[in-house]
Amino acid sequence: MKLNCDLGESFSAWKMGQDEHVMPHIDMANIACGFHASDPNTLQQTLALAIKHNVMIGAHPSYQDLVGFGRRSIKHSEQEIINLMHYQIGAIDGMAQSQGSLVQYVKPHGALYNDMMANDDIFTAVIKSIHGFYRPLKLMILATAQAGHYQTIARNYSVELLFEAFADRRYTSDGLLTPRTESGAVLTKSEVLEQVKNLVTDGVVMTSEGTRLPLQADTLCVHGDNIEAVSLVKEIRALCL
Amino acid sequence: MKLNCDLGESFSAWKMGQDEHVMPHIDMANIACGFHASDPNTLQQTLALAIKHNVMIGAHPSYQDLVGFGRRSIKHSEQEIINLMHYQIGAIDGMAQSQGSLVQYVKPHGALYNDMMANDDIFTAVIKSIHGFYRPLKLMILATAQAGHYQTIARNYSVELLFEAFADRRYTSDGLLTPRTESGAVLTKSEVLEQVKNLVTDGVVMTSEGTRLPLQADTLCVHGDNIEAVSLVKEIRALCL
Amino acid sequence: MKLNCDLGESFSAWKMGQDEHVMPHIDMANIACGFHASDPNTLQQTLALAIKHNVMIGAHPSYQDLVGFGRRSIKHSEQEIINLMHYQIGAIDGMAQSQGSLVQYVKPHGALYNDMMANDDIFTAVIKSIHGFYRPLKLMILATAQAGHYQTIARNYSVELLFEAFADRRYTSDGLLTPRTESGAVLTKSEVLEQVKNLVTDGVVMTSEGTRLPLQADTLCVHGDNIEAVSLVKEIRALCL
Amino acid sequence: MKLNCDLGESFSAWKMGQDEHVMPHIDMANIACGFHASDPNTLQQTLALAIKHNVMIGAHPSYQDLVGFGRRSIKHSEQEIINLMHYQIGAIDGMAQSQGSLVQYVKPHGALYNDMMANDDIFTAVIKSIHGFYRPLKLMILATAQAGHYQTIARNYSVELLFEAFADRRYTSDGLLTPRTESGAVLTKSEVLEQVKNLVTDGVVMTSEGTRLPLQADTLCVHGDNIEAVSLVKEIRALCL
Repeated sequence: MKLNCDLGESFSAWKMGQDEHVMPHIDMANIACGFHASDPNTLQQTLALAIKHNVMIGAHPSYQDLVGFGRRSIKHSEQEIINLMHYQIGAIDGMAQSQGSLVQYVKPHGALYNDMMANDDIFTAVIKSIHGFYRPLKLMILATAQAGHYQTIARNYSVELLFEAFADRRYTSDGLLTPRTESGAVLTKSEVLEQVKNLVTDGVVMTSEGTRLPLQADTLCVHGDNIEAVSLVKEIRALCL
Repeated sequence: MKLNCDLGESFSAWKMGQDEHVMPHIDMANIACGFHASDPNTLQQTLALAIKHNVMIGAHPSYQDLVGFGRRSIKHSEQEIINLMHYQIGAIDGMAQSQGSLVQYVKPHGALYNDMMANDDIFTAVIKSIHGFYRPLKLMILATAQAGHYQTIARNYSVELLFEAFADRRYTSDGLLTPRTESGAVLTKSEVLEQVKNLVTDGVVMTSEGTRLPLQADTLCVHGDNIEAVSLVKEIRALCL
Repeated sequence: MKLNCDLGESFSAWKMGQDEHVMPHIDMANIACGFHASDPNTLQQTLALAIKHNVMIGAHPSYQDLVGFGRRSIKHSEQEIINLMHYQIGAIDGMAQSQGSLVQYVKPHGALYNDMMANDDIFTAVIKSIHGFYRPLKLMILATAQAGHYQTIARNYSVELLFEAFADRRYTSDGLLTPRTESGAVLTKSEVLEQVKNLVTDGVVMTSEGTRLPLQADTLCVHGDNIEAVSLVKEIRALCL
Repeated sequence: MKLNCDLGESFSAWKMGQDEHVMPHIDMANIACGFHASDPNTLQQTLALAIKHNVMIGAHPSYQDLVGFGRRSIKHSEQEIINLMHYQIGAIDGMAQSQGSLVQYVKPHGALYNDMMANDDIFTAVIKSIHGFYRPLKLMILATAQAGHYQTIARNYSVELLFEAFADRRYTSDGLLTPRTESGAVLTKSEVLEQVKNLVTDGVVMTSEGTRLPLQADTLCVHGDNIEAVSLVKEIRALCL
């Protein structure tokens, strides 16, 4: 079970995340591309850090919304989504290739990720953007009970999907994330470790209704926001080896 | 003698330039990359237009300064210049390749262009960014009497240069452009056509002192700002065929 | 019947609108504040032009979305709307007062205007931002058959409303604008002049269903995008004197 | 001896500085206005915090350069400096007045501050922008041995100056700051406290050459970047009471 983490989200003089501390313990780095966070200098340094630790490089593109950190849904046409995806993927891939590596997958950020999971038109636009990029890339999406639905669309465009589960979020019996507004939506540390064990050993999560839900996941999303988060990543890592 | 033109410089709702009208009459399009002008949608449309007219695609990267249209010099370290060049070139090249074409050369924009010609450290940073990009690109710079100086630096990094002359600017006897602040710096229409003829036929320009100056140029920079400019491009084109 | 017009919407090197030509023929200038268009230099020049022609100055604030020209709805909390309104109104008012004039009213731009007319929570947030600004300002909104509804909310916060009608848009019998996607939504030139005459003389518009609809309007919105539009403004002006 | 501190420099999702911890211990808050840092929400919260602790509000305007945090010199005309100053001061003042307070002084940020102290044309542009703002404001500049020179220019425009000394920087015998590139330029904690004592008691600083230099200062600049810095501010505060 591979660990993926959003990082490279500093911008200009503002630092965010413990990238140096979390990078050694993850397998896949979802790296911001400049539309919700990052800038060319942050990108170059983050790519160098990922390459140093042999971490697979993923593009983490977003709506163009620095002031909202890409967390606000903004209406786009299909062509506009393709354009913003290609621009950002091209930028990070050009930089990664110039450091002797390359982008291998794409995980949309924030509102674009949520919109993609909530709206098939936007999911299709994202799939088309991956399909239309000039060289093959995988797309990382949320592992839910509806995996087959997304697989069908992706296969139409020959796009390979990667499913990510969340170590720290409680799932509903429908296989969706319990909304953050509900109590218990974010797991405690011991619950996180329990959920990871269940996923790794049995491929299941315990839902908010107390049932066991099978969840096919290729990778676990972890966080490197602060030192406590990094410490938890190390414990998760130990369970995944 | 190839004609090159800066275009793709619209942004968001703001239109700039007569791209549709000038594109059929040029050979090389210097396309803005989003740092002084353009956005992913403008880029996609401009690339499509260039490809339709079989015009060679050049990246036209800039300092990150939308509010100053890239015309203001901003101090950068060498690594920062490499980073902003790679980001922008990667972005446009990813988009161009996804449309089945590719970027073949780079012409820095505005203050970055001027700084490169005025300061060898910045010229070297630009050269290193071209050298360090993961696939070969040419660099377009100003044709002056000092071509050899730039060739020496460029050869150290195996970068091929393209020299551009200006159809509409008067040259000094030192082979530099007469500053725009001086009278006669910008040629009249008939002077432009005369200068093009001299360049194409004899490889010389008449200087402000009235002497004939040999000027080796691979390409002529023309403008598509308005309908009159486009009309002049057609006349220049006729002289170059 | 006063004429109002959106202007001051140039940005950096990009020019938009025929401000110099339309300003002499209008009464109220809705001036962009930098969040969807304009910058400090454009603002200073636009204010000077308005003051020269003795045109009443209105702030034309927007969501912070230069790349979308403020035309895209972005979710904001009430406090966030108040903050972005106060920031923009403060900026333009500080500049206007430093030129010896002042902002007298506010007309939200684009998506913020549409959201305000479509959603009472957002209308209330806008009203509270006007109420909470440190000195009195009027709010310009769309004249519809629901004027009383908006008046009730505005009076709760002691905010005076200005109702604007559109010279060039066809109204439904519900007193709303016919969506631009429907044929006939935008009036022809002769229809515009007819509609202005009806409004000025009888206080009515002819609806898409052919009925006469009373519409109380304090001001007519006109456009100065190009020379033809300016020419039409002059004809409208003649009908309003 | 009043303490002033730069704060309100968070932006969007990025936090910077220990504003909540340092605000109770300072007298004057230099608050970012959105051009190098801050946004309308950060501004509203920072103003509320200053007002809660009865801290005098200063505008901390900058060149428009978020990506460079306002630290890069960018050439502007006098009118452009006036425009960007008025825009930013208007924005923060409108927000401050809407919270029942107001801006009382201006301290330029970063490169604009340095350029103002290094170039009389830019100092004059700043002075004119303060003079031209529609209500009186003071201008905070660096206390140096050349105070009289700046006083002369300021008096021509009836602008009152506030001189700030740096608690943590070593002065040259010319009364300038020792460049950060030189060893010993930034004082150790005990040296800081010694320098504050010298300034408060005798109005002098010990220079890098070991001489005593009289330095007239109205206020001391302190920092709230992290918890250690805040702790030092408390000790400085104790010496100033």
